[in-house]
Amino acid sequence: MALRAKALYDFNSENQGELSVRENEILTLYSEHDIEGWLEGTNSRGDRGLVPASYVEILKNDAPAAINNNTGSTSGESRYANVPSGGFENFSKPSPPSSSTISAPLQQQDYRQHSQGSDEDWDDDWDDSSTVADEPHSVGGKYNDYEGNGPSTYRVSTSAGPRGNAQQARSSATVGRNLNRFSTFVKSGGEAFVLGEASGFVKDGDKICVVMGQYGPEWQENPYPFSCTIDDPTKQTKFKGMKSYISYKLTPSHTQTQVNRRYKHFDWLYARLAEKFPVISVPHLPEKQATGRFEEDFISKRRKGLIWWMNHMTSHPVLARCDVFQHFLTCSSTDEKAWKQGKRKAEKDEMVGANFFLTISTPPNPLDFQEVESKIDGFKTFTKRMDDSSLQLNATANEFARKQISGFKKEYQKVGMSFKSLSQAFEMDQQVYSSGLNQAISFTGDAYEAIGEYFAEQPSKDLDPVMDLLALYQGHLANFPDIIHVQKGALTKVKESQKHVEEGKMDRSQAEGINDRCNIISCATLAEIQHFHQIRVRDFKAQMQSYLQEQISFFQKITGKLEEALRKYDDA
Amino acid sequence: MALRAKALYDFNSENQGELSVRENEILTLYSEHDIEGWLEGTNSRGDRGLVPASYVEILKNDAPAAINNNTGSTSGESRYANVPSGGFENFSKPSPPSSSTISAPLQQQDYRQHSQGSDEDWDDDWDDSSTVADEPHSVGGKYNDYEGNGPSTYRVSTSAGPRGNAQQARSSATVGRNLNRFSTFVKSGGEAFVLGEASGFVKDGDKICVVMGQYGPEWQENPYPFSCTIDDPTKQTKFKGMKSYISYKLTPSHTQTQVNRRYKHFDWLYARLAEKFPVISVPHLPEKQATGRFEEDFISKRRKGLIWWMNHMTSHPVLARCDVFQHFLTCSSTDEKAWKQGKRKAEKDEMVGANFFLTISTPPNPLDFQEVESKIDGFKTFTKRMDDSSLQLNATANEFARKQISGFKKEYQKVGMSFKSLSQAFEMDQQVYSSGLNQAISFTGDAYEAIGEYFAEQPSKDLDPVMDLLALYQGHLANFPDIIHVQKGALTKVKESQKHVEEGKMDRSQAEGINDRCNIISCATLAEIQHFHQIRVRDFKAQMQSYLQEQISFFQKITGKLEEALRKYDDA
Repeated sequence: MALRAKALYDFNSENQGELSVRENEILTLYSEHDIEGWLEGTNSRGDRGLVPASYVEILKNDAPAAINNNTGSTSGESRYANVPSGGFENFSKPSPPSSSTISAPLQQQDYRQHSQGSDEDWDDDWDDSSTVADEPHSVGGKYNDYEGNGPSTYRVSTSAGPRGNAQQARSSATVGRNLNRFSTFVKSGGEAFVLGEASGFVKDGDKICVVMGQYGPEWQENPYPFSCTIDDPTKQTKFKGMKSYISYKLTPSHTQTQVNRRYKHFDWLYARLAEKFPVISVPHLPEKQATGRFEEDFISKRRKGLIWWMNHMTSHPVLARCDVFQHFLTCSSTDEKAWKQGKRKAEKDEMVGANFFLTISTPPNPLDFQEVESKIDGFKTFTKRMDDSSLQLNATANEFARKQISGFKKEYQKVGMSFKSLSQAFEMDQQVYSSGLNQAISFTGDAYEAIGEYFAEQPSKDLDPVMDLLALYQGHLANFPDIIHVQKGALTKVKESQKHVEEGKMDRSQAEGINDRCNIISCATLAEIQHFHQIRVRDFKAQMQSYLQEQISFFQKITGKLEEALRKYDDA
Repeated sequence: MALRAKALYDFNSENQGELSVRENEILTLYSEHDIEGWLEGTNSRGDRGLVPASYVEILKNDAPAAINNNTGSTSGESRYANVPSGGFENFSKPSPPSSSTISAPLQQQDYRQHSQGSDEDWDDDWDDSSTVADEPHSVGGKYNDYEGNGPSTYRVSTSAGPRGNAQQARSSATVGRNLNRFSTFVKSGGEAFVLGEASGFVKDGDKICVVMGQYGPEWQENPYPFSCTIDDPTKQTKFKGMKSYISYKLTPSHTQTQVNRRYKHFDWLYARLAEKFPVISVPHLPEKQATGRFEEDFISKRRKGLIWWMNHMTSHPVLARCDVFQHFLTCSSTDEKAWKQGKRKAEKDEMVGANFFLTISTPPNPLDFQEVESKIDGFKTFTKRMDDSSLQLNATANEFARKQISGFKKEYQKVGMSFKSLSQAFEMDQQVYSSGLNQAISFTGDAYEAIGEYFAEQPSKDLDPVMDLLALYQGHLANFPDIIHVQKGALTKVKESQKHVEEGKMDRSQAEGINDRCNIISCATLAEIQHFHQIRVRDFKAQMQSYLQEQISFFQKITGKLEEALRKYDDA
């Protein structure tokens, strides 16, 4: 009955219920089926506990454990979704998983666009080739019928993954320490921080201030605000044309120095940020695409997505100022050494996850947790409603765009053709006095055909930007359940600690520490929510204005064309 | 073998091949199957010839002829399609058919809206009750799908009847006298006139001049042009509310005196005109409708149709001036005696059909018949093309109207609802600084719902009038094959006479007479074609201008609404 397994790497138990194992150690498992990525078993010393499923190899038919380091590349593949097979060829054996990579199997679910960095795979074209296989949903044409099941470029919700995860996790976090090591609260470092386990050296430059603003806690404004343009996506080749990729020209306003970046650089940056900031909604990158990566439409669309993304990055008081983002924006594209240095530094950054909270300074007066809870609950309801209505608006806009491109265009062009046909019939009368009318009707026919074209061209000018904005916000809305979950987890710890103090199981000072740290998390969460509302109002106001202006121009253009046609009758 | 039949009325042979019979005379028929409404037989005196089938009653099983005057009402019914059963109750027996009613069985096919007048049936509500059964096709809603088989209010071609008839008739008219007594050429009186058989006293007031204009023969302009408004269709009742009908207020500009007329009065007038003028395209009346006769939509639509009809009547130099039309326009609605007097006079008018041509005076130089033939052929091709493209435009306009009322409206309103829903979600954020935006988005939602309504309302303002115009012209286009046929018949007679002269079978003077009379018909035909082109250019120019103006106003209204919405964001 006993199922044997071999540990592929060292695993050090960090929490109660986990089982430490050494590489090549033989374990006895209770089942070969993992529970959320964990297997239960006993080690050679008879200790019982959970071990990450990806850390062990089950030995079927009790065959002797084949100590073969090359199997690592296989299991590596399953964990590093964004790294192509062969990406580890320079390794003699799989590297021991770092604490951040422990959760890779699920992070892959959370952050689709997240990839693990390594200097060795940096120059591979993994964003141009194999990684695209991870994004089968992004394949497809524009404006697919929402009622059908066709794929759509405007995928509106990426929330299924993280939400599902958050839902699962929410039910835990009720005991002193969560058994579910993959709960966002735990993963993000929120739990470790609240329990006082985070430690690190906070440099002055790392300090992040939450101040008390008019509407509650908010991030201190960036004293040196800047923006960054993204221009001229150009196709580049290397390896004598064997590989090609698109390079974007980034020009930050504070340096006025252009740097070239590829999508994979954005992707790497995104991964760093998502890892570093537990309660900040890092904007999602525009989606990957399997086919047509070099097609103009796709490139233009991605560029627009990256511009939106960049706008949200530079607008965020914390994200805009963080080192890794500044490195990304300012490091010379040609100084490879400086780039790699900054890259390594970012990947070794200690002030990530739990430690990030150490860098936060809060307003002098602690928050009223009851008030915080009510605010957070209100925000949760809000995000749900906004998510629903964004989805609806997106579906409507998508369908409206499709109708304009097909049906509306067709109707106006049919009217145009009918007028043309009438003018052609009229031309057969050979009456001198009717030639002016015939020409005018013919022109009217052309005008309606042109109006049909206007309808077909319009969505790219007004509806597409609306949908781009909605896509970006769908990303934020997908982030918030995790953020809320971290704050809720912290609040649960406070309640527990109060109970423990009452029961005499905990020192008051210890509980006060938990309280203080929960206050930090709450301040950061509320500051992030406040920031979200502010950019939301800014963005939606601007986008609605732009949409209406485009619509007005559109109808004015139609009116102009009709007026031109009408004038033709003056001499008819 | 011999089949016996009894003559129901006196019939006087007017042409070679016809057989005169007296009422109650017994005939022997060669077959009980009529050929185009005629039966061949011999009378009691042994004369052989053709007799109208509706004038005899076949005696089956050689039963004695039942002399029953009341059978007249049955056969009357079949001839007077627009007269309800019971309409002849005041007659002791069927009135002897006049020359004009001989052709009634086929005229019914030609002129659907044509009814035979009689003082006795004048006060019956035959346009309000049983006559509607003659128009099953006009039942139905607006904007039916043209691709489906549903009924449509915008029936575009009423040409099947007359065209088919013309087609049948065209192949005759090759011998000295046509055997087919129902050919339009014969029916209209064209043949009789060309052969010099018409005679009548032409009063000065009846004189109609064709003059040589810039583009060929044309009707002399009406020296006293006038117009006539049609206002306030009102529901009237009589017989203590038992009967109700719609009365239209007509005010001719030359009298400035209002008269009230019902649809049946128009209908009666139409019948007089269609009978009187063989080569003039009398505009068709708007269609009858079986159901919903008192519904506002229908009344408004019929009024618009009558206005168009009236416009074409007053625009026509010949129709506008003719006595029966003037009587219709000017006779007091309350002076019943004067009305009946004029009515009887019109019904007894001798200058109808063949005699009408007697009233025409032509330009001094006769036309070149070869040129006439080429012009007429060109016009024939033109009408075919115009008919096709009008049909197409009508179908397109109908479909376009339908789309705007359903699909376009729906799409814009869906966009409106999605904006509303977004604004409602945003209202949940309870942030003071976003309430302006929320209101602006909500207003934008309302604006799009309003725009959806604009789309639905628009077709009645621009496409409906276009379709009304097309319907009127479809009527004219349906008239022209008969008109062309009369001219072609006359030309054939000329060719025959020339051949007969060459063969010495005919006096040169006789042939010259035929030539002269063919010249009169040709002048009238070309004048009518010229008039058609002139009103066509006038009408289509005006309608296209009006359509474009309406479209421009429409898009400006949309633009205005959007600008209003855009301004809401200024304070947001």
